[in-house]
Amino acid sequence: MWYFGEMKLKTIALISTGGTIEKTYDEINGALSNELSVLDIMLGSLQLEGIQIVRVPLMNKDSMDMTPGDHDLIAGTTTAMAESHDGVVVVHGTDRLTTTSERIVGLSANPPVPIVMTGAMRPYELRNTDAMQNLTEALLAVQLLAPGVYLSIHNKILQFPGVIKDRDRGTFIRKD
Amino acid sequence: MWYFGEMKLKTIALISTGGTIEKTYDEINGALSNELSVLDIMLGSLQLEGIQIVRVPLMNKDSMDMTPGDHDLIAGTTTAMAESHDGVVVVHGTDRLTTTSERIVGLSANPPVPIVMTGAMRPYELRNTDAMQNLTEALLAVQLLAPGVYLSIHNKILQFPGVIKDRDRGTFIRKD
Amino acid sequence: MWYFGEMKLKTIALISTGGTIEKTYDEINGALSNELSVLDIMLGSLQLEGIQIVRVPLMNKDSMDMTPGDHDLIAGTTTAMAESHDGVVVVHGTDRLTTTSERIVGLSANPPVPIVMTGAMRPYELRNTDAMQNLTEALLAVQLLAPGVYLSIHNKILQFPGVIKDRDRGTFIRKD
Amino acid sequence: MWYFGEMKLKTIALISTGGTIEKTYDEINGALSNELSVLDIMLGSLQLEGIQIVRVPLMNKDSMDMTPGDHDLIAGTTTAMAESHDGVVVVHGTDRLTTTSERIVGLSANPPVPIVMTGAMRPYELRNTDAMQNLTEALLAVQLLAPGVYLSIHNKILQFPGVIKDRDRGTFIRKD
Repeated sequence: MWYFGEMKLKTIALISTGGTIEKTYDEINGALSNELSVLDIMLGSLQLEGIQIVRVPLMNKDSMDMTPGDHDLIAGTTTAMAESHDGVVVVHGTDRLTTTSERIVGLSANPPVPIVMTGAMRPYELRNTDAMQNLTEALLAVQLLAPGVYLSIHNKILQFPGVIKDRDRGTFIRKD
Repeated sequence: MWYFGEMKLKTIALISTGGTIEKTYDEINGALSNELSVLDIMLGSLQLEGIQIVRVPLMNKDSMDMTPGDHDLIAGTTTAMAESHDGVVVVHGTDRLTTTSERIVGLSANPPVPIVMTGAMRPYELRNTDAMQNLTEALLAVQLLAPGVYLSIHNKILQFPGVIKDRDRGTFIRKD
Repeated sequence: MWYFGEMKLKTIALISTGGTIEKTYDEINGALSNELSVLDIMLGSLQLEGIQIVRVPLMNKDSMDMTPGDHDLIAGTTTAMAESHDGVVVVHGTDRLTTTSERIVGLSANPPVPIVMTGAMRPYELRNTDAMQNLTEALLAVQLLAPGVYLSIHNKILQFPGVIKDRDRGTFIRKD
Repeated sequence: MWYFGEMKLKTIALISTGGTIEKTYDEINGALSNELSVLDIMLGSLQLEGIQIVRVPLMNKDSMDMTPGDHDLIAGTTTAMAESHDGVVVVHGTDRLTTTSERIVGLSANPPVPIVMTGAMRPYELRNTDAMQNLTEALLAVQLLAPGVYLSIHNKILQFPGVIKDRDRGTFIRKD
């Protein structure tokens, strides 16, 4: 039912796995890498009145470095959390985001609550970044969507399976 | 139907009326006021892949200075735009946001598309602001909500009528 | 002597008195005012390798609200600190900055170390501000200038007396 | 003579050569590199009342990639500019900044005006960066220093030769 009176405060599991969105800058080697989670700093700069967040800092990896075991672990944790929360948001590197998402669909084609994947093309640490936009949108989308597995990025929602990264345009689209 | 395949690009009317969100700083008198619209700068810093925006810069007023005629004009423009677009977002000062919103409900209790009101407690010009969060959330909410008149602010959706500003906490809640 | 080998770490007294540079935004009344000192946050975002700072939070007032007693107190504190430190930086509202500065010159025409006044036309709290520029420049200028009383603002040094605020251009210039 | 009445507007040559300070983020490969000069954007956010800048965009290279010919070219251009301007500021990668600086001292041990080298440990593109601090300080230092070859970084001035990068602390110090 899509009537909104006062929404009850929903409890959302927020699983972080790393990726560009969380990369920080290392002065010594002059490169961006996944060392510290900046997700808590990002959450601190948002005003979140509709949800209560349960933080699950599962791993902090560039998704290019994820093993098959990593994808399985994230998918398993996500579907488990979906049983006990009003929604799940997963922050993930964009390069292998669709791989993990399709394993989630494989484990749970009809999850009991919305599962929303997100990430960023430009780290939060940058002056110009899509990280804050994508995080805040995912945290709203998980409150509004019907149960299912989705990507929320760049003010757009796509349902899995059948989503691919469009590397030239730096965003995601439907396959075919 | 809440199935999301590839979402068609929705056409959203974005009506700006002023308010805190758009206030700029005047060095001469050292105060924040509504002189120039900063909404286009804000839009330029978002990546919006799911919608096409039709900008309607209707007025640029602190809502404390709005006349009954201003409220009527905004309400009339909003309901007219709702007839010809896939959704309407209205950026409005928070002090009188509920006044305009209830006039919209009075004119059109069952609008054909979602109408989403938003604003900010801290101007975009500030280093720490809720303006970007509220704008990007409103532009996503208008794609996901059923037809109706809503407030989208601080990662929370409230449906009109029956919404009030909570001045102590600096946000909005349902009346009783 | 203007030879710079390894500069010894200089001890600089940093006296804050308020002014635009330190104004913060109050959500309840929607205005900028001098309530909390943001100077420590500003200092935390600079990397200061050449000096050791002694913080003197003397008052936090819009300089338009300063009494003759306030000007005297700031001038007296500044000249006292100049006796016991390698330099003094005073952060001050721009409207009455020259009044205080001329009292300092009156008390101590030939101070033993450099005294550098600064302030800002746009608060630190704003996204676009001259506060960080002016603070970091003043903290460098106090290390490089000969003893005397100066204004450091907008990448420019002016020596007192004989400096006035140019309200139209939003900066300071020499009188005639 | 270190008397400051109204400073005449000084003409400063600003030579950019690349380095961390100017690195930008490439979404496709997820790395920071020297492609576009951001120095003009940085200058646009400063208020520079004491100087007139002559921009010399000589090259845009990570200094780790500089050839002996690059170091010679920068040193030669710098000493030539020092003959015809009131000062020269050189923006340079920190890894080889001292190499170029010592070639400048080799070419011109007693330059007619101040030559000030600077750079940054964290790119301007980052949310937290020393780029703005170092640029604005260098542009002030070049107005205040006696003729010579200096490094201006992190609110500290060091005179060449005899300066080394302290890689552990992420700054520069005098050798022994």
